[in-house]
Amino acid sequence: MGDGGWSYRDAGVDLDAAERAKERLKALVADTRDEHTLSGLGLFGGLYAVPDDVDAPVLVSSADGVGTKLKVAFMAGRHDTVGQCLVNHCVNDILVQGARPLFFLDYLATGQMDESVVASVVSGVAIASKENGCVLLGGETAQMPDFYAADEYDLAGFIVGMVARDRILDGSAIEAGHALVGLPSTGLHTNGYTLARKIVFDHMGLKVDDEFPELDRTVGEVLLDVHRSYLPVLWPLLEDGALSGLAHITGGGIPGNLPRVLPEGLGAAVDRGAWTPPRLFRVLQRAGGVDRDEMYRVFNMGIGMVAVVPAERTAEVVRRLTESGEAPIVLGEIVPGDGVTWTD
Amino acid sequence: MGDGGWSYRDAGVDLDAAERAKERLKALVADTRDEHTLSGLGLFGGLYAVPDDVDAPVLVSSADGVGTKLKVAFMAGRHDTVGQCLVNHCVNDILVQGARPLFFLDYLATGQMDESVVASVVSGVAIASKENGCVLLGGETAQMPDFYAADEYDLAGFIVGMVARDRILDGSAIEAGHALVGLPSTGLHTNGYTLARKIVFDHMGLKVDDEFPELDRTVGEVLLDVHRSYLPVLWPLLEDGALSGLAHITGGGIPGNLPRVLPEGLGAAVDRGAWTPPRLFRVLQRAGGVDRDEMYRVFNMGIGMVAVVPAERTAEVVRRLTESGEAPIVLGEIVPGDGVTWTD
Repeated sequence: MGDGGWSYRDAGVDLDAAERAKERLKALVADTRDEHTLSGLGLFGGLYAVPDDVDAPVLVSSADGVGTKLKVAFMAGRHDTVGQCLVNHCVNDILVQGARPLFFLDYLATGQMDESVVASVVSGVAIASKENGCVLLGGETAQMPDFYAADEYDLAGFIVGMVARDRILDGSAIEAGHALVGLPSTGLHTNGYTLARKIVFDHMGLKVDDEFPELDRTVGEVLLDVHRSYLPVLWPLLEDGALSGLAHITGGGIPGNLPRVLPEGLGAAVDRGAWTPPRLFRVLQRAGGVDRDEMYRVFNMGIGMVAVVPAERTAEVVRRLTESGEAPIVLGEIVPGDGVTWTD
Repeated sequence: MGDGGWSYRDAGVDLDAAERAKERLKALVADTRDEHTLSGLGLFGGLYAVPDDVDAPVLVSSADGVGTKLKVAFMAGRHDTVGQCLVNHCVNDILVQGARPLFFLDYLATGQMDESVVASVVSGVAIASKENGCVLLGGETAQMPDFYAADEYDLAGFIVGMVARDRILDGSAIEAGHALVGLPSTGLHTNGYTLARKIVFDHMGLKVDDEFPELDRTVGEVLLDVHRSYLPVLWPLLEDGALSGLAHITGGGIPGNLPRVLPEGLGAAVDRGAWTPPRLFRVLQRAGGVDRDEMYRVFNMGIGMVAVVPAERTAEVVRRLTESGEAPIVLGEIVPGDGVTWTD
């Protein structure tokens, strides 16, 4: 409380710092603009002209957060990657319905407006937006003292993409016998962090700067690996109609996500022997004494995206993915039934 | 930790409770669907067909949170109003650019998945979505134990609306001499809660169930009043082209928001004598010893929306607003200059 009475700043909200942070964000945001972007930062809402190159356009939208991966960012004092995880996660979520991204908005809520942390977080959002050809159209940076700790924040995002109505991936093209082609993840992506942190920090007693067992990198580096976007490698295949379905492997793992995109009466037979989960997952499983099925239900186990491919195009899809630098793995196939059936 | 080792549930994340919560939300969400909605809950992204009744359609999008008004909801154990505040806030933010809402997505992050609290929060989101003719297209409910307290949550939202390119309210039609017509707020809306809570709970020592001074209602009731939507009363005027501009009075008050919509070279002359701020604001100012200009910079002071109206249509606009049950107040006019000039 100042001399004369309460002010907003006394109460912990610094509107001037918020203005300065906004100035720093302007250039980052401007760098993602495209020819459809009609607004800059500062208006109440962002403006985006609907592209006219798609017949019967359908908007595809998704909201997501980063989860407690943020806790690792706080521990490591590294704030420029979580925004990339967030955008890429959202891009993947609409890609699996056949959509390419148009624009993105973020929500960043923090206890205290540290302009450099805010700029670092949003720089990650802007970088990944640009990489995915997605405009960072706006967002909200909220100061919530006595709600968030001064050096903590939550981060959520929201994406809007577009697909032609007759090109929506809705599972209707999936048939028994179609192949399941997995694409490698880059670590935990953004799921299972509450369990992973318990195991790594509480049970194994590791610090964020310690070396991760069996990996030549620190705990912080391993746990902050950026959730990758599958848009660049999958978009050419989608445009060619080479895929009958796509499942983004997030919370719930393969059994929680793959069945979501399958039509009634069809299930997935997945051979767990087809790939070896990366060391990270094996260390977590062993150290935490985690049941094997629980591992596959919580984590992606090394597979971040599963494509469903008509049998006659599987060889071509695998070849094209390999040529673009991917390491695709044929995991199994679509079968009559439901859910996921593991074979070992 | 269970007998055999760690599980996700041991770590504090209950995927089954999340599934049950999702089931409870389905009906609420389904009730907001319209003919453009192509998806249900459960897909990775929500699908919304672009309406074809608008020429050169432009999407208008905004992200926002509820801020620390949530703290009052926690204290009062009342969770069904904050979602309404959130949706209405977002609706107003795109309305000021001339857009009507298409769809909404929410982000709800909580320490522990209390299904009834989640359902209550989302019911508020769904109710306000429906009231505004806006589809609740999707959202994310995140369990983040050891990030949020078990009985706390944050809530953010994202809206997408549409406007014809030649009907965007961009301030270009505003001229000196246009009238400023204010519409009453319903309390604090969603801004200034960090200061208001300090004054009410810390400085005045009130409890959430105490009677608010000079008001025949409890502190909780007064502070949880729903942030209203101005869409129903303003849309007919917008469609008729009767408004040259609109400013939603949020954080920053009239001086922080009205100038954002004015073209270069024009400012606003606002007569503070034109209206009497509601008692709520006078109690806060007096009890907190808050400087008068600070009050007008932090709070809406009873005016939640300001319409800019060409002089020749002011009488008609005031009459039509009054006929629709509003209590419009002519606050002043547009003048050469910049920012807001107060007259008393």
